[in-house]
Parts: sequence; C-alpha cells; structure tokens
Amino acid sequence: MVAPTPIIEDLKARKPAALARAISLVENGSPGSETLLAGLHPLVGTARRIGITGPPGGGKSTLIERLASHYRTAGLTVGVIAIDPSSPFTGGALLGDRIRMERAAVDPGVFIRSMASRGSLGGMATTTGEVADVMDAYGFDRILIETVGVGQSELDIASVCDTTVVVLVPESGDGIQVMKAGLMEIADIYVVNKADRPGADRLRQELEVAIGLKGGHAFRHVPAHHHPELQTAKTAREKTPSDAGTDGSDGPWAPPVIATAALRDEGIGELRGALDQHAAYLERGGGLQARRARQLAQRTRDVVERALRRWLWSDAGPRAALETALADVAAGRRSPYEAAAGVVERLRGSNGA
Amino acid sequence: MVAPTPIIEDLKARKPAALARAISLVENGSPGSETLLAGLHPLVGTARRIGITGPPGGGKSTLIERLASHYRTAGLTVGVIAIDPSSPFTGGALLGDRIRMERAAVDPGVFIRSMASRGSLGGMATTTGEVADVMDAYGFDRILIETVGVGQSELDIASVCDTTVVVLVPESGDGIQVMKAGLMEIADIYVVNKADRPGADRLRQELEVAIGLKGGHAFRHVPAHHHPELQTAKTAREKTPSDAGTDGSDGPWAPPVIATAALRDEGIGELRGALDQHAAYLERGGGLQARRARQLAQRTRDVVERALRRWLWSDAGPRAALETALADVAAGRRSPYEAAAGVVERLRGSNGA
Repeated sequence: MVAPTPIIEDLKARKPAALARAISLVENGSPGSETLLAGLHPLVGTARRIGITGPPGGGKSTLIERLASHYRTAGLTVGVIAIDPSSPFTGGALLGDRIRMERAAVDPGVFIRSMASRGSLGGMATTTGEVADVMDAYGFDRILIETVGVGQSELDIASVCDTTVVVLVPESGDGIQVMKAGLMEIADIYVVNKADRPGADRLRQELEVAIGLKGGHAFRHVPAHHHPELQTAKTAREKTPSDAGTDGSDGPWAPPVIATAALRDEGIGELRGALDQHAAYLERGGGLQARRARQLAQRTRDVVERALRRWLWSDAGPRAALETALADVAAGRRSPYEAAAGVVERLRGSNGA
Repeated sequence: MVAPTPIIEDLKARKPAALARAISLVENGSPGSETLLAGLHPLVGTARRIGITGPPGGGKSTLIERLASHYRTAGLTVGVIAIDPSSPFTGGALLGDRIRMERAAVDPGVFIRSMASRGSLGGMATTTGEVADVMDAYGFDRILIETVGVGQSELDIASVCDTTVVVLVPESGDGIQVMKAGLMEIADIYVVNKADRPGADRLRQELEVAIGLKGGHAFRHVPAHHHPELQTAKTAREKTPSDAGTDGSDGPWAPPVIATAALRDEGIGELRGALDQHAAYLERGGGLQARRARQLAQRTRDVVERALRRWLWSDAGPRAALETALADVAAGRRSPYEAAAGVVERLRGSNGA
C-alpha cells in the first residue's frame, strides 16, 4: 500500500478541502480509500459518535442544528453526517437540499456532509463508520449521524455509534408501535421533540411505560432542569444478556426521555447533559473501550467481506465462473443455488480447502 | 446435493406443516435449505408478489387482512410475510404477537408468517425472496409482504416484489418528506389509508404534486368507483432511465393514489383493482418477464456472496487467517484495512489469481 500522504498531511493540518475530498474518496470506495483509512487509523478514537434516528418528520435536522450550536458555544467542533435514503435506481440522492443549516454552515467548526444511502459496496453502516473515522481523524469533537426512517439500516448504523438518540414527535403516532420497530433496543436516549404540541405528554408516558415493560424497575430521580414545562424522566431498563457487563460496571444505563422543542431551542441543554452523562457512564465502567473493541472487530470483518466481494466481482477468475453461473440460471439450466454452489466449489477447490 | 424429497413432496401435496417447516429452514438458513430451494425452483413463478410498506402506524396489517379477505372471496389463496424489525442484540422478534388476523387465521387459504429481520446471513431481501419462493411453490396465488418503516431494507425488499404499495396515513405527517425518503422510487401504487380522517385530502394532494414534480405530466382519467367520498386519482411519472423500457412497452406506469379506510373496509376493491391493473401492465409489455429475469440474476449473485461468506466464516483455512487478522487489529498491530488485505491476499494467492 502506498499511502496518499498529501491527503493525510492536509487532514492533519485541518484543511477543509482535504476533509471533503477524503470523505468523497471513502464514501465512493475509490481507489486509495482503504490506504487512506489505514493511514488515518492511528488518529481515530477521540470523537464521540452520536446517532440521531427516528421516523421522518421528527425535526431531527433542526435538533441537530441546535445541538451543534450548543456544542459550538462550548467550544467544541462538530461533524454532521446526514444519510439520505436515495433512489435504488438512479443512485442519486434526492435530498441534496434537505438540510438547511444556514447558521451552522458559515462556521468552520461545523462540517455537514450528506451521504447517499445506496451504492456502498460494503454496506451503509461500514461506510458511515468510515466517514466518521475521517471526521474523527480530522479532529471533530462530536460527530452527529442522522438517519431517516425506522428500519434495519438504522439498527446497523447504531452499531457504529457510541450513543444512539431516538427522536419521536407527538405526530409520529403510536409511540409503542415505533418502539416495537427495534428502536427500543438501540436507544440510549429518547427525545420527544415538538414537545410543545398536543400529545407530547401522552407519548412520553407511553415511552416510559414501554421502557418499564421492557424490564426496567429502578426509577431514577428526575434531575433539575431549566424548563419546568419540559418534563424529563428517567427509567431504567435491564441490559439484554449479550450487552450486560460490557458497557459499564455500575448497573444498567437508564435511558432518559428528554422533551425538546428544537425550533424554540428548548430542551437542548438537557439533551446535551444526557449525552454527557451517557458518555461518562460508558467511560466509567470500561464500557466505551469494550464497545470500541467490538466495533473494531466488526469493521475488520466487514472490510474482509468487502474486499472479498470486490475480488469476486472484479477479478477475472471468479468473474468468469460467475458469468457462467448467471448464463446457466437465465437459460433455466440450473437454479441459482446449484449455480452458486458451482462458483464456490471452483473457488474453494483451487484454494485447496 | 441430496434433495430432501419428503419436504418437497409434502409441499406439493400442500401440507401446511411442511410449509411451516420449509419456511423455518429457509429463514434460518439451516443445512438443507439451499437444496430445498434448488428443488423448489422449477415450481416458482406463478404467484404475484406484492410489497406493502410505509411508516409505522399506517394500518398496514389491517389493510393486508382486508385485502386478503377480498382475495379469498374471489377464490384466491394468500400468503403473508410480515417482517419484524427485531432486536439487534437478542435476535428475537419483539412482535410475535403483532399481527392479529383472527378472521384470516382460521382459513387454510391464508398463511401468515412473521419473520425476524435480523440474523439472516444473506441479507433480509434475499431471505424474504426465498420465503416467498416457498409460498409460491406451495401454490399461493398472492404473496403479500409487509415491511415496517421507511429505510434501506424497504427499498431492498421492493426489489423482490412484482408490485410495491406504499401506505401512508394523514397522521404520518409531511407526505412530501416521506416521499423523499426513497419511497417514491419504489411505489407502484400509493395508498392513503385512514382516509376518513382529517388531512387525508391534503396528503393525497401532496402526493399527487410530488408525483407530478417527479416528472409526470400525463394525468389519467379518474376511474369510476363505489365510494365517492374516497377519491382516487392517477398521475403519470416518467420512468427513471434505468427502468425505462423494461417494465412494459406501452408507456410509463402511472402510480395511482388510492384512498382506503381499511378498518371500515372501504377502498379495498379499488386497491385490488389497481393491483390487477399493475399486474396486467407488467405482463402486457413483457415487463414482468424482464423484472423476474433481473430478480433471478440478483438472487444468483446474492447466493454466491452468501455461500462465499459462509465459506469465509466457517472453513478452517480462511477462518485461521481471519482470527490472525482480528487479533492483530485488537492488539493495535495493524489497522482493519491492512489486516483485511492480508486475509484476501492469502485467499487470492492460494487461488492462483
């Protein structure tokens, strides 16, 4: 591997143009991107990675803008990755103009990057983690990763974050149903945004009941806060067996439910406080280290799979085997399964396995 | 490959127990599942596969129950695949009890299967397509595939369906925003459910504007229907370049917007009519054949990748290389990229490529 040293040096010198170029390289999986990532690897690990997810229309972009402003006021720099579900056909992002962060955009301490959710050979979560690595190496203190929707990709992207915030609004309807869609497993913090609207209290109560049903019983004390009209409640949940003991040694984390009205800049301080508390919780018990080690192992597996896939679809040997298989299937001579078994046998066989 | 003939024979004999067992085999990727799928392959291809997707809380389950009832009245059998986003930690589906289709459940002409969305080695879309294959081979006339949420997985699952229905409700908020989340690219039919609620007309109009903005200009005539209060409008859209000419030769399909009130059993006949029209459209221009051929090629690629992954994670040779790589990364001796390159070099090298 020949390292593209200029980019790495320019990143270390915090040149914005290098940042944008490095992210493009990584997002597109262009030649040299893995060499770049290998070179950046020693610089990665200081940023806090925060996933912000939830159904569309929840005001996540506004919330992120306000949270970024709060961080900037505190002297922290912020990278934002906004993931746009894009067309499966054109591969183009429809939402290039989605995020309107005028106030943030003129500040060099904030960098916003919109990503298409399609076309990444190694899976969206891997690519997102790699773009976050670039921002991390560049020196951003916080990386906010916004995902739209409630689906598998959101669950996957949570796996590359330190903390996941699930944002709901009264209008998103039945909170319990949203909770059922797998979000409850990944939420470290809940936000009820647009909390000044009707139904916010009901949603918050639904969430707390759902958290309680999930196994929580040790209700923590409600902390003092500035906005008495914006209630903050905390409820404990049991760790799932596979997670227990890895993210802190002082008992399970109690996902708080934070009420915000991002457009009115209300509740953002509380959200920031909850994020700091979760970070402290992770660091206290050695949970952050364990989580990062898991993420690193997963990244390695993902990169191996991606490299193997790239080999499969580009190298002359396997490609020829695959073309034969596809032709056989199209002609009805073999099922996809028999054809695939043939390809793998050929690769295994010549591998001596 | 030794075919598990008894299951295939039992499926042909339409024994429900064999159906359930075959689906479990396929869903879990158990030993023998690919042999089973290879054996079923000649029986696959007569069912119509209909994807039903949209944000949570849209009443998709009720809509599916009513649509299934309409099909049953017409003498058609129906398989339902409901995909539950499950816990990324436990791998268990939280929503085992989600679907309540009491009326349908006592009818042997309807089979409902809830699937976890996690843990499938080959990706959710592939597994879903394979479960649909089992139902298809068993002889169901219609296969309804329900996905929750608005995310990448929904876009992927659309790729294994003949027709995709996107279900929205007035409560789901900003229809345009939902549209932006990639759904517009996959929708063959829009449903505005709970159309008796306030905001339904506005949502329908938003959708029609969005469809128009997307490139449509040839507005079709509104067909006659039984419920004058439930408006049905049709709007044409331009085909995306990659899709043009493959799904019918008589001009682009005009995705209709159907208003339903599933709980009141209103608009379901219209939805069924739109589904029939789309199926006729696909068959008329040879588009169905082209679409199925694309799906078959994609399945073959997916199965090859899955088989290769299975080999990678289970065979002694690659596994040893991978363990070394993981240990190196964990100890900080190499970045994931250098370690992965080492694994692939080893596999490529011994392959002579």
